[in-house]
Amino acid sequence: MTQSNRQILLVSRPSGEASADNFRLVETPLAPLAEGQVRVRNHYLSLDPYMRGRMNDAKSYAVPQPLNEVMIGGTAGEVVESRNPAFKPGDKVVGMFGWQEFGTSDGRGLQVVDTTHVPLSAYLGAVGMPGVTAWYGLNGIIAPRAGQTIVVSAASGAVGSVVGQLAKRAGCRAVGIAGGEEKCRYVVETLGFDACVDYKAGNLYHDLKAATPDGVDGYFENVGGDILDATLSRMNAFGRIAVCGMIAGYDGKPLPLKYPALILTQRLLIQGFIVTEHLDVWPKALAELGGLVAQRQLVYRETVADGLESAPTAFLGLLKGQNFGKQLVKLI
Amino acid sequence: MTQSNRQILLVSRPSGEASADNFRLVETPLAPLAEGQVRVRNHYLSLDPYMRGRMNDAKSYAVPQPLNEVMIGGTAGEVVESRNPAFKPGDKVVGMFGWQEFGTSDGRGLQVVDTTHVPLSAYLGAVGMPGVTAWYGLNGIIAPRAGQTIVVSAASGAVGSVVGQLAKRAGCRAVGIAGGEEKCRYVVETLGFDACVDYKAGNLYHDLKAATPDGVDGYFENVGGDILDATLSRMNAFGRIAVCGMIAGYDGKPLPLKYPALILTQRLLIQGFIVTEHLDVWPKALAELGGLVAQRQLVYRETVADGLESAPTAFLGLLKGQNFGKQLVKLI
Repeated sequence: MTQSNRQILLVSRPSGEASADNFRLVETPLAPLAEGQVRVRNHYLSLDPYMRGRMNDAKSYAVPQPLNEVMIGGTAGEVVESRNPAFKPGDKVVGMFGWQEFGTSDGRGLQVVDTTHVPLSAYLGAVGMPGVTAWYGLNGIIAPRAGQTIVVSAASGAVGSVVGQLAKRAGCRAVGIAGGEEKCRYVVETLGFDACVDYKAGNLYHDLKAATPDGVDGYFENVGGDILDATLSRMNAFGRIAVCGMIAGYDGKPLPLKYPALILTQRLLIQGFIVTEHLDVWPKALAELGGLVAQRQLVYRETVADGLESAPTAFLGLLKGQNFGKQLVKLI
Repeated sequence: MTQSNRQILLVSRPSGEASADNFRLVETPLAPLAEGQVRVRNHYLSLDPYMRGRMNDAKSYAVPQPLNEVMIGGTAGEVVESRNPAFKPGDKVVGMFGWQEFGTSDGRGLQVVDTTHVPLSAYLGAVGMPGVTAWYGLNGIIAPRAGQTIVVSAASGAVGSVVGQLAKRAGCRAVGIAGGEEKCRYVVETLGFDACVDYKAGNLYHDLKAATPDGVDGYFENVGGDILDATLSRMNAFGRIAVCGMIAGYDGKPLPLKYPALILTQRLLIQGFIVTEHLDVWPKALAELGGLVAQRQLVYRETVADGLESAPTAFLGLLKGQNFGKQLVKLI
């Protein structure tokens, strides 16, 4: 019996906003495993803002996603067949199989995870790349001290939610920026931030000022644009800004930074980073994050789209902030 | 006999461009020295871009220059009278007496310098604050490695000229940006940079690209505006930008930074700094810079205005780039 694999390919590049037309669903037969190979049934696809950058054919930190190939992305699933001694059927694994139902590999880059105390999907969120991103940007760049004020944009998201909770654990005042009353309520009431500013309410600078009476010592940037301008204006002397994402500009309209002179007058440190270039911190960060999730001291929220075919729409929604917490696609 | 002292006061704040009307020359009597005091006849006033920032009444790293007081600034001169055992007539000293012919102090902040091998005026330039600024931004922030490309704006100026020469000594490709053919020729032929881009020639990005075929690893920023945008576009991954000045925006028009997303895609480090906040490096930097000047391995150029009354005009010219090298006012 030849099983088939459903896959989503990138078939064209966006000019301006990405659209569903950029993707195509195909069905391909699964070849029998070769010696050394392992086959995984993916349970979850991870959808992440960085994927928008890969859709462009532009100079960036990563090679573009090739056209007419399976769209890249992190995955979590279960080994269903193995001709590799390192894996056995039933093993739960995370990998980078992209937007498809089955993944086949020689085992490289595939990691067996323990789902006794940590749910499988968390390995794509708080105990995965987004969690380590938060951990590194906060500890490696912002390096907060107790009593300081730390601001994070996209605060209800997979990365931002971890940044604020870790900042609180470090004794800081954690202030989120998120879109809409519901997300802001969640950021304060469930995640435990001290305050959250709703950038959609129309008084961004004023509300941020009210939420940061002592100024801002560290800023974790996921968004860019007006939110970056507003926060930059609140930075204290010797403030640190970790630049993790600039989703506001991902559709190709370059968004200027209005007051670069503040970098000088406030002696700011601004550091862009990509978490996959700091692999040395992953074991330490994952151990800490996994422990906190297992003990329910680090909480997170997921938005789960259903079925492979929902991935493009869910991804476009993510780019517009329609998700609430980590955006996943559940395949099984 | 009561001697008098001529002084220049800041009497109003600029709205937009600074002008000569913001200053006034006054003549005041010199009081007799009290016990512990020392009197200095200033030979040189240092004129520096940072002074423009002090003229505003704005949030910045320093308190504004008070109105109706002597305009601040570094000075170099000779002790003419002393009731302080640490100083004797004839001692050459540098201090911060500001725009006046005589300075009187209790000795704090006044430093005796050795002019045997280093000219007195150099202590206001290559062997003074501008030199240490170059040294710290290059070594403390850019941290260049041999073979890398280092760009500096205002390359013929007091700071930029030292940055490029130190970068060459570190085995780097040094590329300057300066205004006009004459300054660019000087930067290459006299200072020994590998190339210099004339931003007034009208092809800034194109010319910078040609001068930096391997991209830019470190950028020492003195200017801001279009020059910052162009250089940012040439930065290599993991590049470092030391932000020392943004003279292009000092007249109050905020100049945006066009492509902040490059901070992320190139994983850049951007660090604003003020050299007076890094006093720990001064002794080491000054020893190195003094040695190089004494051995004529570090060259510099001065533009010298004559007489106290010329200070305002010379300062306004400096803000427009009309000086060539370190701008001084010679009083005697």
